[in-house]
Amino acid sequence: MDTWRSSGAFSEPAPVRLVDRGAKPEGTVLNVLGVHVGGHEVVIMAGPCAVESPEQLLTTAQAVKSSGASVLRGGAFKPRTSPYSFQGLKEEGLEMLAWVRQETGLPVVTEVMDTRQVDAVCRHADIVQVGSRHMHDYTLLEEVGMCGKPVLLKRGMSATLEELLLAAEYVLKQGNEDVMLCERGIRTFEHSTRNTLDLNAVPMLKKRSHLPVIVDPSHGTGHWWMVPWMSKAAVAVGADGLLVEVHCNPQEALSDGPQSLRPDKFCSMMTELREVAQAVGRQISEPRAVAD
Amino acid sequence: MDTWRSSGAFSEPAPVRLVDRGAKPEGTVLNVLGVHVGGHEVVIMAGPCAVESPEQLLTTAQAVKSSGASVLRGGAFKPRTSPYSFQGLKEEGLEMLAWVRQETGLPVVTEVMDTRQVDAVCRHADIVQVGSRHMHDYTLLEEVGMCGKPVLLKRGMSATLEELLLAAEYVLKQGNEDVMLCERGIRTFEHSTRNTLDLNAVPMLKKRSHLPVIVDPSHGTGHWWMVPWMSKAAVAVGADGLLVEVHCNPQEALSDGPQSLRPDKFCSMMTELREVAQAVGRQISEPRAVAD
Amino acid sequence: MDTWRSSGAFSEPAPVRLVDRGAKPEGTVLNVLGVHVGGHEVVIMAGPCAVESPEQLLTTAQAVKSSGASVLRGGAFKPRTSPYSFQGLKEEGLEMLAWVRQETGLPVVTEVMDTRQVDAVCRHADIVQVGSRHMHDYTLLEEVGMCGKPVLLKRGMSATLEELLLAAEYVLKQGNEDVMLCERGIRTFEHSTRNTLDLNAVPMLKKRSHLPVIVDPSHGTGHWWMVPWMSKAAVAVGADGLLVEVHCNPQEALSDGPQSLRPDKFCSMMTELREVAQAVGRQISEPRAVAD
Amino acid sequence: MDTWRSSGAFSEPAPVRLVDRGAKPEGTVLNVLGVHVGGHEVVIMAGPCAVESPEQLLTTAQAVKSSGASVLRGGAFKPRTSPYSFQGLKEEGLEMLAWVRQETGLPVVTEVMDTRQVDAVCRHADIVQVGSRHMHDYTLLEEVGMCGKPVLLKRGMSATLEELLLAAEYVLKQGNEDVMLCERGIRTFEHSTRNTLDLNAVPMLKKRSHLPVIVDPSHGTGHWWMVPWMSKAAVAVGADGLLVEVHCNPQEALSDGPQSLRPDKFCSMMTELREVAQAVGRQISEPRAVAD
Repeated sequence: MDTWRSSGAFSEPAPVRLVDRGAKPEGTVLNVLGVHVGGHEVVIMAGPCAVESPEQLLTTAQAVKSSGASVLRGGAFKPRTSPYSFQGLKEEGLEMLAWVRQETGLPVVTEVMDTRQVDAVCRHADIVQVGSRHMHDYTLLEEVGMCGKPVLLKRGMSATLEELLLAAEYVLKQGNEDVMLCERGIRTFEHSTRNTLDLNAVPMLKKRSHLPVIVDPSHGTGHWWMVPWMSKAAVAVGADGLLVEVHCNPQEALSDGPQSLRPDKFCSMMTELREVAQAVGRQISEPRAVAD
Repeated sequence: MDTWRSSGAFSEPAPVRLVDRGAKPEGTVLNVLGVHVGGHEVVIMAGPCAVESPEQLLTTAQAVKSSGASVLRGGAFKPRTSPYSFQGLKEEGLEMLAWVRQETGLPVVTEVMDTRQVDAVCRHADIVQVGSRHMHDYTLLEEVGMCGKPVLLKRGMSATLEELLLAAEYVLKQGNEDVMLCERGIRTFEHSTRNTLDLNAVPMLKKRSHLPVIVDPSHGTGHWWMVPWMSKAAVAVGADGLLVEVHCNPQEALSDGPQSLRPDKFCSMMTELREVAQAVGRQISEPRAVAD
Repeated sequence: MDTWRSSGAFSEPAPVRLVDRGAKPEGTVLNVLGVHVGGHEVVIMAGPCAVESPEQLLTTAQAVKSSGASVLRGGAFKPRTSPYSFQGLKEEGLEMLAWVRQETGLPVVTEVMDTRQVDAVCRHADIVQVGSRHMHDYTLLEEVGMCGKPVLLKRGMSATLEELLLAAEYVLKQGNEDVMLCERGIRTFEHSTRNTLDLNAVPMLKKRSHLPVIVDPSHGTGHWWMVPWMSKAAVAVGADGLLVEVHCNPQEALSDGPQSLRPDKFCSMMTELREVAQAVGRQISEPRAVAD
Repeated sequence: MDTWRSSGAFSEPAPVRLVDRGAKPEGTVLNVLGVHVGGHEVVIMAGPCAVESPEQLLTTAQAVKSSGASVLRGGAFKPRTSPYSFQGLKEEGLEMLAWVRQETGLPVVTEVMDTRQVDAVCRHADIVQVGSRHMHDYTLLEEVGMCGKPVLLKRGMSATLEELLLAAEYVLKQGNEDVMLCERGIRTFEHSTRNTLDLNAVPMLKKRSHLPVIVDPSHGTGHWWMVPWMSKAAVAVGADGLLVEVHCNPQEALSDGPQSLRPDKFCSMMTELREVAQAVGRQISEPRAVAD
């Protein structure tokens, strides 16, 4: 056996990979309760960074839906750099998401941080998010690979595109083919922005893989006023969807306030995005009813 | 005198800076022989990486002009990582640029690498380019600040946006206000692309400074097939111009072949760019005649 | 409540932190079965990247002990970038570690990748390692904070020192004060080495925190022939210990062969390290018997 | 002709390179007025960041000489990020260096920033420094390659080791074989230190090339209190010399005060370095008289 070949961190990948474009040249289109990701339409997922209260979540969800978002985002389990920061409402937050999902008909994407949370998150979420800090958490990837729900996999802060694809391979290998890759900015020496949004990733991932590619301009910039600009760029460069932080009152947000759009700004951004989508031969997805 | 304040590498900048948006809130619009950079129109500068021969340059210039480029790029002095790579045709290359400029009426942008070359380059160029490797070459910046020609200043490979602005300040401080800032990709851990094109830089630079911002998707990706994608993103994000490498026969190019577009690909890209420009309320500049 | 202050990614840490030097100016000295980490002696932890078989582990353990290593390292759960690489022997590997620990009297450090493995790992390990890919896995950090065993916490591939300290704070906050910080190289643009070993981290962490600092020159370089050089540098710069990969037959190693020292090279390195330790007023710890 | 091969930025280097270890397996030892760099002894070059006045320079030179430095450093031409920072005393500074060189007998290393300064700098300096901002300034490298004086070439802020070697090749190709390579820290995401001192560079450069390797712990950390720690590490890892900023009154320094050692700290560091040098089989060079 050629064990040497398989030993290095940068060793050759297996010749046939589930994640490769060659494995499915026509591309993967996910169906999330009638919202199609990876096809002609560009899907906007919006909502608060963290679920804070039923009112906060419902108000924001209604606002983003009325502007044209077709998926609701919101964190119940929040990975925070400091143990003294707000850590999310956890199970309680999941229940708020479930309630607002019923009220608005919007499918829900929310993050899972631990293998022991996978069951609970899957009961309430339509899309399970694996965050940047967990892209390399291979045990978790295997677990969500068996959970039966679509997965939104965010690129690690310093993960190469090849490593992102191999992380997705962990999920696909368990039989779950419904994976979306998400570019959310990488860590570089430039500190005027929170991260450096690597839009090169979009055409490169689309070329190499059949999986849909989502862009998160909120974490990719760290500044709400930059989000509309980078969202237009993301649509122009071929992203299949956006993940955008919107908060009714960013100055009171328990996390990521500085990068959250107010609903009115989000609404005018959506108008602009429709123009750009059309210019590149696509269109922004409209919200659909949940077929629950 | 508070010498300590002025001593650190990261010391506070002077309170009033020529480069800041506040110094000229309406924005700078350069006039390069009738081509306006920084206004409503998006200016496409295209041509080969290096000037290789009169025929190569003329053919490429005519091709990019017929597709709608309004400025010709081409390097006579080539900074190359290895001393064994082609170093450019130097003065001879400048003369070829001057001849093709006459033939086509396209203004010319070309790089200067050394203070002793500034006079010669200025005699033939309409825009003097300071490349990434020389963004920190302050003596050269002062010299081009006195040369009387517009300057295209490329961001260093690992320069922060603040450092790019301070480099521009060196030029402006000499009395030359006609400076364009150019994002061309930064060096990161990601190696599937030659550089990481930092499109965050465009809105951030536009907010902080009144100077026009140009994007170079060729160096920013290193792959010709990515150039149309990133060009569309750059126009969507508010760039005032693009700097694109085009070569009639990329496989024979003496430098940067892998990232050079063939003229037919450049032509179809221009059609797409016109759509995106319109979607964001701008339009692609058309070539003008040289008023020589 | 000033929620804004607590909302940003770069928000101010709480004024009093358990991890800070100020909380314990005299420094923390851990006692791992009689091996003291953080005091006068420099502790060498050595062994294979992965546990592969009882023979491989025992042979290597005896070799490193005879050269003067006082802790045995070896991975049972292996986080691998590709799902097609060897993933470790898991529970079986833990049992081999327990057996060799008995045979040699060496305390054992091994990695835990998932909250559900913490109990099993703690039953067999004397030091629980949280790897680079899991430094941001805050649920896991809280779990090991409650496990009652000393923790070796590796810096994430692109984690700042501040983020490493905050990750340690998650552990300390659960009441576990026995944490070692481990510099193992960061991800940069330089690719001739696997990572860039950031030895600046050692004095900076020692100044900011009372916790012992360990250096991993194997991952920090990726080349076995560099390990003795960087180990000498690490001892000179004040590291409290080293974590070194040693394999009896690196060419057959199931992981990290290229960066593993052969026992004879490890032995000659230990001789050199004793000289350097003495030059900086310290000494290399000698192996002790397990008081089981 | 295979032009494609020679065209890319990452193209293969020429098969035989002057800079490679294979071109001179025994290693290069430079003789700078009797100070040998690259041999058994480790050479300490110390002095102020910038030449500020004859008194400042003489006092500092005498202090570092009495502590055992054998080369005097000091900048007359200062590349500064901001045009509003102190730019050096230029020609006047060179004359001060010449005077102090006479007074103390210490050979002098000072930076050149522009091809037009090479003659003047060479008249006064014993070693011509090409700084990080100019490592990619190939015209300047060619010029110093013809100047007849030893060259200290600093690694660019984001230059790979391969690029540093190719920059040195520009100098050697002009017939100047007396080149020292200098690691001075690279730019990364970590901002608690000014740069990340990449000590991996020392063994890697020594393996690949026959040229001596110098380490600059002052720029590599940005904090004076870290300089003794990183200097010990640099000696332990095999550096052939150090370049250290020392200032009699750092709080009044016109540049780099925060990273400058006071003479008393430098003196106690030298004592420690002698111990470490001996532990790795070398010794610190003692100052010699100028044979002028």
